[in-house]
Amino acid sequence: MTDPPTYQRWALKIEYDGSGFVGWQRQAHGLSVQQVLEEAASRLVGGHPINSVTAGRTDAGVHALGQVAHLDFPLNARLTPHTLCEGLGFYLTSYPVSILAAAPVSPTWSARFSATWRAYCYRILNRRARPTLTKGRVWHVKPLLNVAHMQQAATYLLGRHDFTSFRAAACQARNPLRTLDQLTVTQHNDEIIITAQARSFLHHQVRNMVGTLKLVGTGQWEPERVTTALAACDRSAAGPTAPPDGLYLKNIGYIPDPFASTHI
Amino acid sequence: MTDPPTYQRWALKIEYDGSGFVGWQRQAHGLSVQQVLEEAASRLVGGHPINSVTAGRTDAGVHALGQVAHLDFPLNARLTPHTLCEGLGFYLTSYPVSILAAAPVSPTWSARFSATWRAYCYRILNRRARPTLTKGRVWHVKPLLNVAHMQQAATYLLGRHDFTSFRAAACQARNPLRTLDQLTVTQHNDEIIITAQARSFLHHQVRNMVGTLKLVGTGQWEPERVTTALAACDRSAAGPTAPPDGLYLKNIGYIPDPFASTHI
Repeated sequence: MTDPPTYQRWALKIEYDGSGFVGWQRQAHGLSVQQVLEEAASRLVGGHPINSVTAGRTDAGVHALGQVAHLDFPLNARLTPHTLCEGLGFYLTSYPVSILAAAPVSPTWSARFSATWRAYCYRILNRRARPTLTKGRVWHVKPLLNVAHMQQAATYLLGRHDFTSFRAAACQARNPLRTLDQLTVTQHNDEIIITAQARSFLHHQVRNMVGTLKLVGTGQWEPERVTTALAACDRSAAGPTAPPDGLYLKNIGYIPDPFASTHI
Repeated sequence: MTDPPTYQRWALKIEYDGSGFVGWQRQAHGLSVQQVLEEAASRLVGGHPINSVTAGRTDAGVHALGQVAHLDFPLNARLTPHTLCEGLGFYLTSYPVSILAAAPVSPTWSARFSATWRAYCYRILNRRARPTLTKGRVWHVKPLLNVAHMQQAATYLLGRHDFTSFRAAACQARNPLRTLDQLTVTQHNDEIIITAQARSFLHHQVRNMVGTLKLVGTGQWEPERVTTALAACDRSAAGPTAPPDGLYLKNIGYIPDPFASTHI
């Protein structure tokens, strides 16, 4: 006979402005999203320490529209989706971090390992004038970008490839093979939005793909050169890393979606 | 025989984050967009004082995506659209104000009196969780709004009416009659966008219409009550003034458009 579990696992959907954080993950110096979330969670249950596991560890300055994490709360806290969202929201008031939804999940469900895909979007402000309302939220690129060429170049990256050329030196993944399911380039007035979706990404992969597509957009690269860069399996063959400001962790896919019935 | 004009009039298209300003117009205490623009313009021409006339004097905290102003610069400054945008941009670097375009216009052209319409948009963030990335850029309304009812109510305000019920007590216009050409309510994920277009608006008219449509959205008002409020010609018959954070002066219409050939 086994003891009943004394914890309830919860999935949280989280939005944050990454500008003032050292990234998702706790660091010795500097404030992380993980730290402020775990401290808020701990205060909500009277100081009991709470750890979180996340779907995507965003870097310093990277934003999230739909980050997902799971946390185990003591059963005797008697939380509901409503009290959890409101309670965490209260303790997070002084930080640009919001809990969009909360859903109870099974003890074996993992924000990280149960995810079937991750989607990011990247915003480029393509005009001469500096950003005002979107400062810190976009990559400001002054030269007029050729969107059609960027769209063409993006198609060469789709599918299953060794993405070593688009991988940060610090990347800890054992295997550089990834399957890129979506990479689209769209224009909305003076913004160019790049959307990428895959089961998982290598470290800096999205920002390195964006930095490379920008070279195509300015005409420094022909679209076909992206194929050569990919085949080289050498980081120096691809373009530079785009700044974090324009990157947003958009959403994480799960089957079934634990948040299906919890959205407003 | 008359002397040739010693000034060249320029039309500027301006974007700004209104959060930190007391509004467009100069005030005895507090920084206005007009002041920082005129000071930048003056520095660009060696200290010569420069005055500006604007199409829409936005209130404190109201943003602009396409404000238009005209300024007379000494002819001997030999400005081009490029040097004017870049030069003003340089002197405005420490402010969230950007010059999107500049075009030479005739000495009789007026940013204010040549305008044939003004368009505003208003962003409501409609969800329980606080805004993070859009803090100061939206009105955060927690109760779920009925967009269909808001859309229906908006149609009752279209056309030529006495808008006294939607006019600030401080409004200086002689005539409360205005013709509202467009008032649409659309939803994009957790945002509700209200767009309004007219030749001109009364003071606070857009924010008062939005504050009223919000009462319809929450169900406190039936859509038809907007008709009663309009007919009352009494400010207290309509809803409260929506906060400035969500309001954007979107663009100004001119025939012909002086910026037609200057955009990137």
